[in-house]
Amino acid sequence: MMRILVLHGPNLNMLGVREQETYGDQTLQAINDRLMELAKAEGVTLEARHSNGEGELVSWIQEARCQFDAIVINPAAYTHTSVALRDAILSVTLPTVEVHLSNIHQREEFRQRSYLAGVAIGQISGFGAFSYELGVRAVIDHVRKTRDKQPE
Amino acid sequence: MMRILVLHGPNLNMLGVREQETYGDQTLQAINDRLMELAKAEGVTLEARHSNGEGELVSWIQEARCQFDAIVINPAAYTHTSVALRDAILSVTLPTVEVHLSNIHQREEFRQRSYLAGVAIGQISGFGAFSYELGVRAVIDHVRKTRDKQPE
Amino acid sequence: MMRILVLHGPNLNMLGVREQETYGDQTLQAINDRLMELAKAEGVTLEARHSNGEGELVSWIQEARCQFDAIVINPAAYTHTSVALRDAILSVTLPTVEVHLSNIHQREEFRQRSYLAGVAIGQISGFGAFSYELGVRAVIDHVRKTRDKQPE
Amino acid sequence: MMRILVLHGPNLNMLGVREQETYGDQTLQAINDRLMELAKAEGVTLEARHSNGEGELVSWIQEARCQFDAIVINPAAYTHTSVALRDAILSVTLPTVEVHLSNIHQREEFRQRSYLAGVAIGQISGFGAFSYELGVRAVIDHVRKTRDKQPE
Amino acid sequence: MMRILVLHGPNLNMLGVREQETYGDQTLQAINDRLMELAKAEGVTLEARHSNGEGELVSWIQEARCQFDAIVINPAAYTHTSVALRDAILSVTLPTVEVHLSNIHQREEFRQRSYLAGVAIGQISGFGAFSYELGVRAVIDHVRKTRDKQPE
Amino acid sequence: MMRILVLHGPNLNMLGVREQETYGDQTLQAINDRLMELAKAEGVTLEARHSNGEGELVSWIQEARCQFDAIVINPAAYTHTSVALRDAILSVTLPTVEVHLSNIHQREEFRQRSYLAGVAIGQISGFGAFSYELGVRAVIDHVRKTRDKQPE
Amino acid sequence: MMRILVLHGPNLNMLGVREQETYGDQTLQAINDRLMELAKAEGVTLEARHSNGEGELVSWIQEARCQFDAIVINPAAYTHTSVALRDAILSVTLPTVEVHLSNIHQREEFRQRSYLAGVAIGQISGFGAFSYELGVRAVIDHVRKTRDKQPE
Amino acid sequence: MMRILVLHGPNLNMLGVREQETYGDQTLQAINDRLMELAKAEGVTLEARHSNGEGELVSWIQEARCQFDAIVINPAAYTHTSVALRDAILSVTLPTVEVHLSNIHQREEFRQRSYLAGVAIGQISGFGAFSYELGVRAVIDHVRKTRDKQPE
Amino acid sequence: MMRILVLHGPNLNMLGVREQETYGDQTLQAINDRLMELAKAEGVTLEARHSNGEGELVSWIQEARCQFDAIVINPAAYTHTSVALRDAILSVTLPTVEVHLSNIHQREEFRQRSYLAGVAIGQISGFGAFSYELGVRAVIDHVRKTRDKQPE
Amino acid sequence: MMRILVLHGPNLNMLGVREQETYGDQTLQAINDRLMELAKAEGVTLEARHSNGEGELVSWIQEARCQFDAIVINPAAYTHTSVALRDAILSVTLPTVEVHLSNIHQREEFRQRSYLAGVAIGQISGFGAFSYELGVRAVIDHVRKTRDKQPE
Amino acid sequence: MMRILVLHGPNLNMLGVREQETYGDQTLQAINDRLMELAKAEGVTLEARHSNGEGELVSWIQEARCQFDAIVINPAAYTHTSVALRDAILSVTLPTVEVHLSNIHQREEFRQRSYLAGVAIGQISGFGAFSYELGVRAVIDHVRKTRDKQPE
Amino acid sequence: MMRILVLHGPNLNMLGVREQETYGDQTLQAINDRLMELAKAEGVTLEARHSNGEGELVSWIQEARCQFDAIVINPAAYTHTSVALRDAILSVTLPTVEVHLSNIHQREEFRQRSYLAGVAIGQISGFGAFSYELGVRAVIDHVRKTRDKQPE
Repeated sequence: MMRILVLHGPNLNMLGVREQETYGDQTLQAINDRLMELAKAEGVTLEARHSNGEGELVSWIQEARCQFDAIVINPAAYTHTSVALRDAILSVTLPTVEVHLSNIHQREEFRQRSYLAGVAIGQISGFGAFSYELGVRAVIDHVRKTRDKQPE
Repeated sequence: MMRILVLHGPNLNMLGVREQETYGDQTLQAINDRLMELAKAEGVTLEARHSNGEGELVSWIQEARCQFDAIVINPAAYTHTSVALRDAILSVTLPTVEVHLSNIHQREEFRQRSYLAGVAIGQISGFGAFSYELGVRAVIDHVRKTRDKQPE
Repeated sequence: MMRILVLHGPNLNMLGVREQETYGDQTLQAINDRLMELAKAEGVTLEARHSNGEGELVSWIQEARCQFDAIVINPAAYTHTSVALRDAILSVTLPTVEVHLSNIHQREEFRQRSYLAGVAIGQISGFGAFSYELGVRAVIDHVRKTRDKQPE
Repeated sequence: MMRILVLHGPNLNMLGVREQETYGDQTLQAINDRLMELAKAEGVTLEARHSNGEGELVSWIQEARCQFDAIVINPAAYTHTSVALRDAILSVTLPTVEVHLSNIHQREEFRQRSYLAGVAIGQISGFGAFSYELGVRAVIDHVRKTRDKQPE
Repeated sequence: MMRILVLHGPNLNMLGVREQETYGDQTLQAINDRLMELAKAEGVTLEARHSNGEGELVSWIQEARCQFDAIVINPAAYTHTSVALRDAILSVTLPTVEVHLSNIHQREEFRQRSYLAGVAIGQISGFGAFSYELGVRAVIDHVRKTRDKQPE
Repeated sequence: MMRILVLHGPNLNMLGVREQETYGDQTLQAINDRLMELAKAEGVTLEARHSNGEGELVSWIQEARCQFDAIVINPAAYTHTSVALRDAILSVTLPTVEVHLSNIHQREEFRQRSYLAGVAIGQISGFGAFSYELGVRAVIDHVRKTRDKQPE
Repeated sequence: MMRILVLHGPNLNMLGVREQETYGDQTLQAINDRLMELAKAEGVTLEARHSNGEGELVSWIQEARCQFDAIVINPAAYTHTSVALRDAILSVTLPTVEVHLSNIHQREEFRQRSYLAGVAIGQISGFGAFSYELGVRAVIDHVRKTRDKQPE
Repeated sequence: MMRILVLHGPNLNMLGVREQETYGDQTLQAINDRLMELAKAEGVTLEARHSNGEGELVSWIQEARCQFDAIVINPAAYTHTSVALRDAILSVTLPTVEVHLSNIHQREEFRQRSYLAGVAIGQISGFGAFSYELGVRAVIDHVRKTRDKQPE
Repeated sequence: MMRILVLHGPNLNMLGVREQETYGDQTLQAINDRLMELAKAEGVTLEARHSNGEGELVSWIQEARCQFDAIVINPAAYTHTSVALRDAILSVTLPTVEVHLSNIHQREEFRQRSYLAGVAIGQISGFGAFSYELGVRAVIDHVRKTRDKQPE
Repeated sequence: MMRILVLHGPNLNMLGVREQETYGDQTLQAINDRLMELAKAEGVTLEARHSNGEGELVSWIQEARCQFDAIVINPAAYTHTSVALRDAILSVTLPTVEVHLSNIHQREEFRQRSYLAGVAIGQISGFGAFSYELGVRAVIDHVRKTRDKQPE
Repeated sequence: MMRILVLHGPNLNMLGVREQETYGDQTLQAINDRLMELAKAEGVTLEARHSNGEGELVSWIQEARCQFDAIVINPAAYTHTSVALRDAILSVTLPTVEVHLSNIHQREEFRQRSYLAGVAIGQISGFGAFSYELGVRAVIDHVRKTRDKQPE
Repeated sequence: MMRILVLHGPNLNMLGVREQETYGDQTLQAINDRLMELAKAEGVTLEARHSNGEGELVSWIQEARCQFDAIVINPAAYTHTSVALRDAILSVTLPTVEVHLSNIHQREEFRQRSYLAGVAIGQISGFGAFSYELGVRAVIDHVRKTRDKQPE
C-alpha cells in the first residue's frame, strides 16, 4: 500500500488567519481532512505534518526514506531560501511534488526562485488548497507508473 | 454546461516523435483522447487544438471569449517568448491554467521565464501528459467555485 | 498625395473589450474612423490594418515599400519581442512612428524594451487613442519637412 | 481658460548652437513662439521658462500648482538623474507630458531611463521641435477629456 | 495596557562579547533592563526574548498575535536570509519595527537586503543599543496614533 | 549647549499637500514646531531649514561645520542621487542622522539606494513626522555619549 | 542521394533591396541559383524556401523530417527570439547548420544571442552570400562523415 | 592540550546513503572514527557533532568559545544560505576551517557562494572524506604557529 | 592669447579642511595660485571658479563658449551623477580636460563611472593638486597642436 | 599569388590526444597537411604555425603584415581572454577569419564571448577540423572579391 | 614510484619580498625544500618549477603528461584570467590540485573566480605555505585511492 | 639620481602604423626620444622597453625593484586582462603611473576596466603621446615629494 507524507512549511499553520486574499480561508486542518478523504478514495495512506523549523523538516524528510513512498511538500518560505531541504530530498531519492497555494510566479521577485524545483518531479502553483489535492494525485500517478515499469 | 478549450503550442504535434526522454512517448492524439474521457466523466465539454503559429493561437484565445468558459494551455516554446499570448489572455479574462510536460524549472535558464504565468490562475509543470489532466481538473474546480460564489 | 499605412498589432482588435482601465473604451473601428477624418483634413490618404500574426505584419511592411510614404505602427506585444518587425522597417526605409496607447514606461519591466524604437523616427506613448492621432500628425510633419529639403 | 506651463531643462537655451545634427537648428525662442501661436489657436494660455538648475525647476513646478492646469516638460539631462523633479510632479498632481527632441531610446544607455516617465501621462520622443507641439496638443486633449468627465 | 514583544535574533546573546567595535559593549541583559525601564515610564508592558533558531522566532511571532499589541525585532543575521520571518509578521499583522545595532547600509553587500523591511512599519539602524530604545518609542507612538484614529 | 541643524530636502515644503497617503498630513511648519519643543525639553538649540537646491544644501552643511554640533537630515529625493551631499557630510565630519518619512525600503527600487547612508551614523525610516523626532533624540544621545568619552 | 533543405527566415526576401552595406547586393534568387549549382556539382538535391512567419518555418522543419537529410537555415531575426524554431530542430533531429550573412558578433547586443546555436552542428557568420555556400559544404561533409561511420 | 570541535551540517548524517557519486560511500561514523585516530596521533582532543538545525549549530559554536581552541566545519547546505553561522564564528573568534566533500566550485551556481569563507582561515574543497583530514591538519598547524608567535 | 577656464565642483572649497588623507592638505586658494603661476610661465590667461551648484556650473560652461579657449574641470561629486554637465560641454564644444585629486578608480564603485569622460579629451586622476597642473599642461598642449594643424 | 597564414592557439598541439569527444581525433599535423592540399588546389600559398604563448601569437600577427595577405586563426583559449590578439589584428588590418573546432556557442558561458569576433571578417564554429577548411575557403573568397573591386 | 609536478605561477618568485601580510614571509625556495622533505617521507618524487609566463606553464603541463602522475598548481594571478591553463589541464587529464596561499574568497571580487577550479580535483585556499603541503598530501591520497580501485 | 622605467605593452611597437585615427601618427621611437629629452631636462635617467609578452613585462617589473625608483607603464591590452601585472606591481611596491594614448573611458565596455588602476598612483588617459610626458612628470613629482617627506 502506497504511503504518502505531506509536509507543510513555516506559517502554514496560520492558514485561515493569515492574508486570506492571498492564501484563501481554509484552515490547515480542513486541508488535511480533505487530503485524508482523497487518500482513502485512492487506496493509499497519507500522513500530514507541519513545522516552522527548517531543521525539523529536513529530519522528517530523512526519516521518510524508510517509512514513505513519496512526498508532497509545500515548503512555503523555505522554497526560496533553503538549500538544506533540497539536499534532504536529494539524499532520500523519494519522488517529491512541490505545491504552492498562491501562484508564486506572480509575486515578489524573491519568491520566484525555488531551490526545491530542481529536485522535485514537478511543481503545482496557484490553486489554493486545491494545489495539495492535485499534488497528491500527481504523486500517486507517478508512483503507480514507476511501479508498472519495474520488472517483478 | 462548462466548456473548456485546450490549446497545444508549437511542436507539440511532434509528441511521441520528439525527444521522448524529455516529453514522454504519448502522442498528442492519445492525450486529447484521455482528456475527452475525463471531460465526459466530469460532465463538461472540451475541445483541443494545436498550432505552430503564435498569431493563430492569439486569435483562438480571442474567439474563445464567447465560446468557452476556461482555457488550459501548454504554450510550449511561446511560454518564454510571447507577450502576445499574455495579452490575449488578459483581453478575454477567461480563467486560464498553464501546463507543461517537463518541469521547466529544471531546464535551460531561458525556459524558466514564463510570460503566461503572470496572467494564469496557476501553473502545473513536470508530470508529462498527466500535467494536462491535472490542469483540466484545476480549471474545472476553479470555475465551479467561482460560480458558487456568484449570486444568482 | 502622401499615403500613410497604419498598422495595429496583436490583440488591438479587442480594444473596447480588453482591460478598459489600461487601454480606454474606444473600439479599433472608432479609432480608425477618427484617423480617416484627420487624414482627410490634412489632405493625405490613410489605410489601417490589423493582424495578430508577426509574419503577416512583416509582409505588410515589406509591401508598403512601393505603396506608402510612411508608417504609423502600434506593434503592441510585438514591440517587446519582435526583431523581425525591426528588420522589416529597416529593409523598407520608410519613415515610421511608433505609438502606444498606455505609457509603456510605467508598466512591467519587459514592456519597457522596444525593439522598434531603435529604427523609428520617434515614439509616442500614453495618450490612449489620441496617441495614434499624434502619431499621424508627427509622420505627416516629418514627410513634409523631408520633401521641403529635397531639391526638385 | 486652460493655462499650460512649458518647462525647458538644462542646456536647452543652447538650441540652435548645440549639436545641430542631434537637436535641430531651431532656437528656443523660435520654439516658444511657435507654441504661443498654437496656444492662441487652441484658445489656451501658455507660458514657457528655461532653467539650468534642478532646484529652480522643482520650485517652478511647485508654484504651478495654483497657477496652471497642466505642464509640458522637456527635462533634458535631468530626465535621467533627477528624482526631485519626479517628486515635484507627484506633489502637485498636475497632468504632465514629457517631451524630448531626440529619440532617447536610440541614444546612450543612460539616456534610456527616465525618472519622469513613471509620473507623466505620456512621453513623446524624437520629433525635434515638433515634439513640443505634439506635447501641447496631447495635454490640451487630456485636460479637456478630464473636464468632460467631471460632473458640474 | 499596551503590550510589546521585543525579539532578539541569532548571536545577539553574545553582545558585549562579540565584535565590540561593531556592536558596542553592552550585554543583552543590560539592553533588556533599559527597555523595561522605558516601558515602565511609558506605561506599557514589555517582554524580551532571544533565540538562535529561525523556526522558534517564527513561532513566537505567531503566538504574539493574541498576546501582544506590537513587536520590536532585531532579526540580526535572519534579516538578510529569512523569508519565513517576513511571512510570520504578515500572518499576524501586528505593527512591527525593525531595529539594528550597526548601520547595515554601511556593511557587506549582503547585509543591505532586508526581507523584513518590506513588512515592517519602519527601520532604525546604526545607533547601537539606543536603536532598541528608539524602536520601542516608535512602536508605542504608532499604536497610540492608530488607536486614536479608530472609532470607539 | 548642543546645537542641531535640521535639513529638509526637495519637495518637503509640500508636506500636507503632497501625497498624503505616503507622507502623512502634517505640514513642515508643524514638524518644525514639534522639533523646537523637543529641543527645548532636551536643553539643546535647533534650527530647521528647507531647500529644493542640491547646491544650497551642500553649502549649508559646509557652513554648519563651525555653527552646529550635529545634523539631522531628510535628504528626500537627493538621498538617491546626490554624491555631493555625501561629500559635504564627509568634509565637515559632523555626526549626521538620516531620516525618512516613508519606509524607503518598501518603495521603488531606485529609492532603496542611499548615498548618504554610507556616511551617516544611522538611518531612521518609515515613521512619518515621528522619524524626525527619533532622529533628533538619536543625535542628541550620540553627541552626549561621545562627549562623555572624551577626556577633559 | 542526399537531400538538403535551405530555409531563409524573415526579411531575407528583401535582399538586394535592404541595407546593402550590411547584407550585400545579391538577391535571394541569385543566392538560391548559386546553391543549386553547388548542389549539382556535389551530387546532392537541394530545395530553398523563404517565409516571414515563425509558425510556417516551424512546420516546414517538422515536415523535413521524412523528406530531407539535413537543413541549412538562416533564421534571420528569429535567431534571437524564437525558442519554437529551436524546439522544431530538436524534434526532428536532422543535422542543421546555422548561417548568417553579417557577422552577428559585431552587431547589436541582442543579435549576439542565438537560440538556434545550442541545437545546430555549427554556425557560420559574416561572409555574405558565401556563408550559405560554406554552410551547404559543411552540412554535406557532416552527413557524409556520419554515413561513413555507420555500419551497413 | 589542543581541543578541536568538528561540526557537520545538515544532511551529512545521510553520508554513505546519499548521492554516492557526489559525496563518496563512507558513513559519517567512519569519518569521525578516522578523525579521532588522527587527533590521537597528533596529540589533540577532538569532538564531532552533527545537526540539521541552523540554530543548533549557531549555539554549539557559541558554546565552543570556552570549550575548544579551534573549529573545523562542513556547513553543507548552510554554507550558501546562513549569515547566522558567519556571525556566530565572528562572535567567538575561534580559528575556523571550512571543509567540503565535493568541489563546490564545480557545482550549481548557488553552491559557489560561501557566507563562511569570509570569516574562515581557509577553505578545503573537493577531496571527499579526506577534506576533513586536511582540515584538521590545517587547523592544528594554524593553532600551533599562532601559539609559537605569542610571548609567554 | 589662449584663455583657460578652471572649474572646481562641489565641496572643493573645503580642501585642506576635508579628509586630508584622501585629498591632501593644500587649500583651493593655494592650488589656484600655483595654476596662475603656471599660466603666466606658459603665456596663457587662466581664471578659476568654484561652485557647489550643478546649474551654476552648467551656466558657466555655456558662457565660456565665447570667453575661453579651453576648460579644465574637476567635477568632483558631479562627475558621477551629472548628465547636465556632460551636455553643457557637448553644447559648447570647447576642449575640456577632466581632473581628479584622488585616483577615482580605487574608490567606491559609484565613483568609477564618469559622465564627463565620454566628452572630455582625457582624464587625469590620482596626483592630488598636481593633477590640476598636469591638466592645464595637457589642455595647452592640445590647443596648440590643434591650432598648428589649422590653415591660416 | 595569395599568401595565407594559419595560426593555431594554445593547446591545439594536443589535438588527437586531448578530449576527443569534443575536438575530434585528427592531429594538428593532419589538419595542416589537408590545408596545404587545399591551398595547392586553390593556387595559393599557406603557412601554419602553433604557439602556446599569447605574446608570440601577437608578434606573428604583426610580422604577417608584410608577408601575408590574410589570416585564418583558431585562437583557442585566447579567444575569450586576449585583448592583445584583438589589438594585433587591428594593427595589421589583414583580413582575418576566426575558426573553432567545437561549437563554442554550446559550451561554458565564458567560452561564448570572443574578443576576436569584433575584428574578424567572420566566424566559423563547430565543424571540427573541417572548420579550418571552410575558413581557408572563406578567406580566399574574400580576398579575391576585394581584389576584383579594386581598380587596377 | 609516484611523480608529482608542483607549478608556481606568476610573481610567486617574489615570495618573502612581496606583501608579507598577505602571503607570509617564507621564500619560494623554503617552500620547495619543505615539499621535497614531505615527498621523501611519503616515498614519492617531486619537482617544482616557477614561471611568470602563461604559455610556458601551459607547455609544462602538456609535457607533464608522460613524465608525471599528478600536478599541484598555484596558478596565482592566472587563476582568474587563464582559460589556456584550464584547457592544458583538460588536455593531459592528470589529477590536479589547485592551491592558494591566501584565502581568495576573502579578497577582491575578481580573485573569486577560478578558471582552474572547474577542472581540478579540489581547491585548498588560505593556509599560507602550508596550503602546498596539504595539496601534496591530497594529491598523493587521490592517486593512491585511484590505483587501489584499478584492477591489476 | 632618480631612475625611471617606461614600459610599453603589446602592439605599441606598431604605433604610427596602427589605427592612426585612434592612436596618432608618432612612432614608439619618437615617443621614447621625446621622453629621453624630458628626462635629461629634469635631471633623471630613463629607460624604455617594449614587449608583447605578459610574462616578460611581469619579469621586467620584478627586476625593476632594485634598478629603478619608479615606473611609467602603458599596459595597452593587458590593462584589461592581466592580474599578473597588477600583482607584479604590488610585489615591488615602486610608485607606478598608468598611461593610455586614447581616452579608454570612451571606448569599448571591456576597455573601461583596468586591473592596474587599483595599484597605480594615478592614471592619465587620452592625450596621445603627450600622456607619456605627463606620466613622467607626474611620477617625478611624486618621487620628489615622497623624498622630501622622509627624514634623512
